Amino acid sequence: MGILLAELATQLGAQLRGDGALEITGVAAPERAGPGDLSFVAERKYLKLLESARPGALLISVTDAGHFDGNALIVDNPHVAFARAANLLFPPEVMPHGIHASASVDSMATVAPTAWVGPLAVVEAHAIVEAGAYIGPGCYVGESTRVGSRTRLVERVSVLHHCVVGEDCIVWPGVVIGSDGFGYARDGARWVKVPQLGRVVIGRNVEIGANTTVDRGAIDDTVIGDGVKIDNLVQVAHNVRIGENTAIAGCVGIAGSAVIGRRCALGGQVGVAGHLEITDDVTVLGTSLVASSITKPGVYSSSIKAEPAELWRRNAARLRKLDEMADRLRRIEKQIEEISGRIHSEPD
Amino acid sequence: MGILLAELATQLGAQLRGDGALEITGVAAPERAGPGDLSFVAERKYLKLLESARPGALLISVTDAGHFDGNALIVDNPHVAFARAANLLFPPEVMPHGIHASASVDSMATVAPTAWVGPLAVVEAHAIVEAGAYIGPGCYVGESTRVGSRTRLVERVSVLHHCVVGEDCIVWPGVVIGSDGFGYARDGARWVKVPQLGRVVIGRNVEIGANTTVDRGAIDDTVIGDGVKIDNLVQVAHNVRIGENTAIAGCVGIAGSAVIGRRCALGGQVGVAGHLEITDDVTVLGTSLVASSITKPGVYSSSIKAEPAELWRRNAARLRKLDEMADRLRRIEKQIEEISGRIHSEPD
Amino acid sequence: MGILLAELATQLGAQLRGDGALEITGVAAPERAGPGDLSFVAERKYLKLLESARPGALLISVTDAGHFDGNALIVDNPHVAFARAANLLFPPEVMPHGIHASASVDSMATVAPTAWVGPLAVVEAHAIVEAGAYIGPGCYVGESTRVGSRTRLVERVSVLHHCVVGEDCIVWPGVVIGSDGFGYARDGARWVKVPQLGRVVIGRNVEIGANTTVDRGAIDDTVIGDGVKIDNLVQVAHNVRIGENTAIAGCVGIAGSAVIGRRCALGGQVGVAGHLEITDDVTVLGTSLVASSITKPGVYSSSIKAEPAELWRRNAARLRKLDEMADRLRRIEKQIEEISGRIHSEPD
Repeated sequence: MGILLAELATQLGAQLRGDGALEITGVAAPERAGPGDLSFVAERKYLKLLESARPGALLISVTDAGHFDGNALIVDNPHVAFARAANLLFPPEVMPHGIHASASVDSMATVAPTAWVGPLAVVEAHAIVEAGAYIGPGCYVGESTRVGSRTRLVERVSVLHHCVVGEDCIVWPGVVIGSDGFGYARDGARWVKVPQLGRVVIGRNVEIGANTTVDRGAIDDTVIGDGVKIDNLVQVAHNVRIGENTAIAGCVGIAGSAVIGRRCALGGQVGVAGHLEITDDVTVLGTSLVASSITKPGVYSSSIKAEPAELWRRNAARLRKLDEMADRLRRIEKQIEEISGRIHSEPD
Repeated sequence: MGILLAELATQLGAQLRGDGALEITGVAAPERAGPGDLSFVAERKYLKLLESARPGALLISVTDAGHFDGNALIVDNPHVAFARAANLLFPPEVMPHGIHASASVDSMATVAPTAWVGPLAVVEAHAIVEAGAYIGPGCYVGESTRVGSRTRLVERVSVLHHCVVGEDCIVWPGVVIGSDGFGYARDGARWVKVPQLGRVVIGRNVEIGANTTVDRGAIDDTVIGDGVKIDNLVQVAHNVRIGENTAIAGCVGIAGSAVIGRRCALGGQVGVAGHLEITDDVTVLGTSLVASSITKPGVYSSSIKAEPAELWRRNAARLRKLDEMADRLRRIEKQIEEISGRIHSEPD
Repeated sequence: MGILLAELATQLGAQLRGDGALEITGVAAPERAGPGDLSFVAERKYLKLLESARPGALLISVTDAGHFDGNALIVDNPHVAFARAANLLFPPEVMPHGIHASASVDSMATVAPTAWVGPLAVVEAHAIVEAGAYIGPGCYVGESTRVGSRTRLVERVSVLHHCVVGEDCIVWPGVVIGSDGFGYARDGARWVKVPQLGRVVIGRNVEIGANTTVDRGAIDDTVIGDGVKIDNLVQVAHNVRIGENTAIAGCVGIAGSAVIGRRCALGGQVGVAGHLEITDDVTVLGTSLVASSITKPGVYSSSIKAEPAELWRRNAARLRKLDEMADRLRRIEKQIEEISGRIHSEPD
C-alpha cells in the first residue's frame, strides 16, 4: 500500500538522492521516524532531531541537503512537499453519493447525483447541493442555500437560509453559518431587534474549524474570501469581510463590519473591534486587541506574558498609577532643569 | 409586495415629508440605497453617506430633517423606526405547527397544538412546548423542560432537563442550556464531581447567539432576566444571574455565581470573574477583565490596543519591571528633595 | 425518599453529632437551607451564612465543629463529603441499554449489550461502544472510535474517526473531538493543507464541557490524561498533551503541541501558546497568557483588572510610552549622580 521513493520524487517534482526502490508506507515527525517513514526538515536547526531517529527518507531543501546523508527528496519547500506527500500516501477516502434513507431532503431542494447527503441530515427547500459535495451526518442546509462542488460539511454543520459556501471547502462539526447578527436598536431601556437581512458568502477552498460561528449580514453580506483558513471557536460577526488567504487561529473574535485584508494572520484569542479596517499582510500576535484600523503591513501586538503572580500583582498595581507616575517624572525633569540652571549659574 | 410610504408613516407613527404614494420595497444602508429603498440616518455625521446614493425615503430625526431634502419619515429614533420598518417589510415567516414525522417526541411530553416540532428534533418526557413555540430541526428539549409561547429554538439547540426558556425568545444553533456547571471538590490530587442540582431559568424576550453555553446551577438556579441579549460563543457559568435588558457581546466568559445588573453592556471577549457583583448600568469595554465587584454605574476598561510588535515588545518588557521603576522614581524624588534643601540652604 | 442522618454518617465515614433519626431529603446552600436539608461549611468564615438559615444538618470540619451547635456530620473535607452526600441523595438515573429505533448504527460497529445508543445517534463502522456506555441523542461516534465503559456522551457530542474516549468520562453537548488540527504549509500566498493523521486519546474519568473542541494530532496524537476536567468552550489544538487531574476553566485556548503538566489549573480565558511546556502543579490566573515554558510550580498571572475607562485610558496611553519613560528615568538618575557629585565636591 506504500509508494516507492522514486515514484514520490516524480509526483512531487523532487530531486531523488538515494534508494528510489525504497517503499514509503507512512509519515512521521523527524524525531520518531522509522525505516518506512517519510519525514521533513523545514529549517536546518531541526536536523538535530534526527540524532535519535532515522527516517526512510527525508524531504529537505537544497541548501540543507548537504547536512544529511540518508535517502532524500530535495525540494524547494519541504513543508509544502510533505503536505503533498501525505496526501498521496493517505488519499482522502472516496466520498459516497446519494441520499441516506434517514436524511430529510425537501422535494424542492436540488442535490446533484454525485453529491452525498448523510444520515439524519436536513436539506431545506430550494437549497442546492452541487456535484461531489458531501453533506455529513446531522448537517443542516437551509432554504435557498448553495453548497459548492466538492465541498465537505463534515458532520453536524449548520448553514442557515440563503447562504453560499463555495467550492472545495471543508467545514467542521458544530460550525454555524448564517445565524443572525447581534443587531439591536436601543429604545429606552429595551432592545429592539433589527432584522438581519444579509447573507454569508464564503469563497472557494475555505476551511472552517469546529464550533466557529459566522453571522449573516445586517443589510449587506458577511464575506469570507477564497483560501481563508479559520480555526475552532472563532466568532465572525455580521458584515465582516475577510480577504483571500487570510488565516485566523482559534478563539478569535471579530466584531461587526470589520474588514480584514488578504494574507493576514490573526493569532489565537485576538480581538478585532468593529467598523475598522486591517490592510493586507498584517500579522497580529495572539491575545492582542486590534482597536483601530491598521494601515501598514507588519506585525502587531499588545500581548503580555504571565509571570509569577506575586511579582505581577505589584507591577499591575503600579500600572494602575502609571499616569500619575508619568506626571511625577515630568515634575522631576523640571526640577532637575532648575537645579542644573542654578548650579551652572554659580561661579565655580 | 412593497408598502406605500404613507402607510409606513402611519404604522411607524412618523411624520411624512414628500411622496406618500412611493412604494418602498426594500431597506438598504444609506450609501447603497436605491429608489425603492428605505434607509435611515441615526446621526447627522452619517448624512454625508448620502452623497453617493439616493434612497427612496429616509428615516431621520426632527433635528436633522432640515439637512436632507428627499422623501423623509421624521421620527424620534431613526434606528428603532428602521428596525420596525424592516419587520413590516420582511415579516417573519408564518411558523408551521404540528410534529414532523422524523421527530422523536416522548409520549409523556406536552406539545401545544399550535407549536411546531421540526425534523429530527427530540422532546423528552414531561417537557412542555407552549403555544406557538417552534422547535427547529435537530433540537433537543430535555425532560421536564418548558419552552415558552412563541419562543423559537432555531435549529440544533439543546435545552437539557428541568430548565425554563420563557416566552418570545430566540435561541440560535449550537446553544447548550443546562449543561452541568464546572463544580468539583478537591480530594488530594483528584477532583470529586459535585452534582449540579439547579436549573437554568430564562425570562421573556431573550435572544441567545450561536454556540453559546449556559450551565445549570449547582444548588440554586442560573438566571437570565427578561430582555437580555447574548451574542455568539458566550460562556455563562453556574449560578450566574444576569439582570433585565443587559447585552453581552461575543466570546464573553462569565465565571460562576457572578451577578450582573440590569441594562449593562459587556463588550466582546470581556471576562467576568466569579462571586462578584456588577451593579446596574455598567458598560465594560471589549477584552477587559472584571475581577472585583463594580458598585458604581459607568464605563470600565482594561483593554490595551495593539501596536507594532517591535515597539510593544519594549514597552511590555518595561512593564515587567514597573514596580522596580516606581521604586527608583521614589528614590529620585527623595534625592531631589535633599539636593534642593542643600541648595536653598546655601547663601546666594 | 430521603436518607436518615445516621445512615449518611455511616456512608460518608463521618462522626455524627445530634439527631441520627432525622430524615435528610435535600441539599442546600447554607444561607437557604431548611430543616430537611444537608448543607456544608468548608471554611469558618462561612459560618455566618447560617445566621439567616438553619439546615437540618451541617457537614463541618473537626476544627470548626465547636462553632456550630446543630446536627452535624464531622468530616475531614466538608466539600468532598458534600459532593458524596449529594450523589447519595440524588443518584444518577439508571441508564437504559439497547439501541433506539431512530439511531443509525453501522453493521460493522460493536455496541455492548449493556450500552445505550439514543435517538438519532450515529455510530460508524468499526466503532466500539463498551459496556455501560451511554451515547445520547444526536451523538456521532466515528469510524473505528472507541467509547469506554460507563462513559456518557450526554447529547449531540461528536467524536470523529479513530479516537479513544476512556472509561467513566462525561462529555457535554456540542463537544467536538477529533476535528482536524489547524495545519497548513505556506506556499507563497496560499495555504496547503497538511493532512492530520493523529488521533485524540482521552483517559479515564475525564469531563469535557459544552462546545469544547479537541483537535486530532497532526502526526502523533492529542492526549488528555486521566482525571482531567475541562470546562465549556475550550479549544485544545493538535498535539496538545494535558497531564492527569489538571483542571481547565471556560474559554481557555491552548495552541498546538503545548504540553501541560499534572494537577495544573488554568483560569477562565487563559491563553497558552504553542510548542511550550508547563510543569506540574502550575496555576495560571484567568485571562493570563502563557507565552513561554513554565518550569517551576506556582501561581502565574498577567491579568489586568478593569477600572473606570477615563482613568484607564490615561494609564494605557502612558503604557504605550513606557519604554521612553524608562529611558527618561535612566537619564535623570545620571543627572542626579552628576549633580550630587558636583555638590559634594564643593567646599562646604
